[in-house]
Amino acid sequence: MKPVVGTLAIVGFGLIGSSVARAARRSGAAARIVACDADAAARATIRRLKLADRVVASPAEAAAGADMVMICTPMSRYAGLARAICPKLKPGAVLTDAGSVKRAAIDHLAPHMRAGTFLVPAHPVAGTENSGPESGFAELFDGRWCIVTPTAHAPKAAAAKVEAFWKRLGSRTARMTPQHHDRVLAITSHVPHLIAYTIVNTASDLESTLRAEVIRYSASGFRDFTRVAASDPVMWRDIFLANKDAVLEMLGRLYEDIALLQKAIRHDEGETLERLFTKARRIRRGVVAAKQD
Amino acid sequence: MKPVVGTLAIVGFGLIGSSVARAARRSGAAARIVACDADAAARATIRRLKLADRVVASPAEAAAGADMVMICTPMSRYAGLARAICPKLKPGAVLTDAGSVKRAAIDHLAPHMRAGTFLVPAHPVAGTENSGPESGFAELFDGRWCIVTPTAHAPKAAAAKVEAFWKRLGSRTARMTPQHHDRVLAITSHVPHLIAYTIVNTASDLESTLRAEVIRYSASGFRDFTRVAASDPVMWRDIFLANKDAVLEMLGRLYEDIALLQKAIRHDEGETLERLFTKARRIRRGVVAAKQD
Repeated sequence: MKPVVGTLAIVGFGLIGSSVARAARRSGAAARIVACDADAAARATIRRLKLADRVVASPAEAAAGADMVMICTPMSRYAGLARAICPKLKPGAVLTDAGSVKRAAIDHLAPHMRAGTFLVPAHPVAGTENSGPESGFAELFDGRWCIVTPTAHAPKAAAAKVEAFWKRLGSRTARMTPQHHDRVLAITSHVPHLIAYTIVNTASDLESTLRAEVIRYSASGFRDFTRVAASDPVMWRDIFLANKDAVLEMLGRLYEDIALLQKAIRHDEGETLERLFTKARRIRRGVVAAKQD
Repeated sequence: MKPVVGTLAIVGFGLIGSSVARAARRSGAAARIVACDADAAARATIRRLKLADRVVASPAEAAAGADMVMICTPMSRYAGLARAICPKLKPGAVLTDAGSVKRAAIDHLAPHMRAGTFLVPAHPVAGTENSGPESGFAELFDGRWCIVTPTAHAPKAAAAKVEAFWKRLGSRTARMTPQHHDRVLAITSHVPHLIAYTIVNTASDLESTLRAEVIRYSASGFRDFTRVAASDPVMWRDIFLANKDAVLEMLGRLYEDIALLQKAIRHDEGETLERLFTKARRIRRGVVAAKQD
């Protein structure tokens, strides 16, 4: 099959960036892959594992000659990267990303775009708690959704190319406005991570006699939370700052629902508890049926 | 190897009860297994899968002649079961259970005990989100902890027998007071389940356009919560009612910690977020090192 993209430059080669490279290799989605990472140890790993055709430290160097540049770094680095990348983009080149907050991605990247180059933000809804180029794998995006949020300025062909690329990697694709994307992800991903981080820390702040036991007896429930809470701290710091409004809104809704359960427990309202738990179980069945597990 | 128990009666043959039977068969921990379940469909499944030497509907019948009776039902059934079981226990027989709240277990069971029979409550810290006799498996307890909380009345030999039984099934065992057990489990298991149920319900209460997308895009974070929230609603209703004090205390602590993170997001305090997330990641490493994952 013909490649979707000629030269693909991946800037930030961690779990997501290295998985994109692996999946692109597997599917022939890109004719040539340029890997860019600011970290020397990461670049050595990329070379050792032969994950790219070329490995560079400079985003400007990676962008020069690329048909598509995909930013896969934490979001706090977007503005600086855009300043380096955008002047080097060749006419017709597409700039895309894999970040978890789309309004902020556009705010950081769009001001730096030059005429004749196109910004098409995207978000592959997939991941694990691991970080770094050795943690990626080609199957990460298989059957998962990639949400594409094209700006009004991007021509249809540019958005179509980004969608075709993700489909070739194994994803299903959908389009949304950046605003809508950010609300959906706030409740499905950002608030769950916030709670997981919190509950793990609450446990670790207990009296020391309890704390050791929290780890020892983590097998029921807590363990799943610690897994979610093992995700990259810098990436998540940036996500919460970038999606502040939607996260605070959804957290407010969550508070109200916790208060309901809390009150039911305090007043021994068994029927209320059973009803709410049964409802939650049904949602789980929807997730299983939608093959997202 | 000699069996630890002659005749073992398992009352309530769901995920835990049927896994105990399978693990006891695998290890020869019991010479003979009597299965008791109130549900006719469950009894048919037990017979079909040949999980026990005898299958009965009546707890009194199961208890008669047993050397050890283990209650593996939701906790709301404990008092009624004790009334049926205790008068039938033969001299020297041990009554134990597998429930998640130990103070309440003792409150329900101890008043019905007769002289010359011994109550040794226990809690295997293991499980999955599945229910019913077909969902059990012999490996469920391998390497997991079983917490034994003997009452002051039980002779040392009775507690030692329950510990030896769980070790034979593949568990590691520990002893605790019932009070201490209930606080440890409140934070490692009960509050995480409460939050998982809540967040899944918060998501399902969103405007309908968002709701479908919550399931569709569940792949990052939310999915783990839906898994936890798929657990048996009746069992969990009973756990929250039985462990009310410790759950409400731990929930209060969690609230304080969520408020800290919420404030850090609202005021763009990136350093605070990164510090708290990094701390949570360290706890995860403890869980992995303790081989509870």
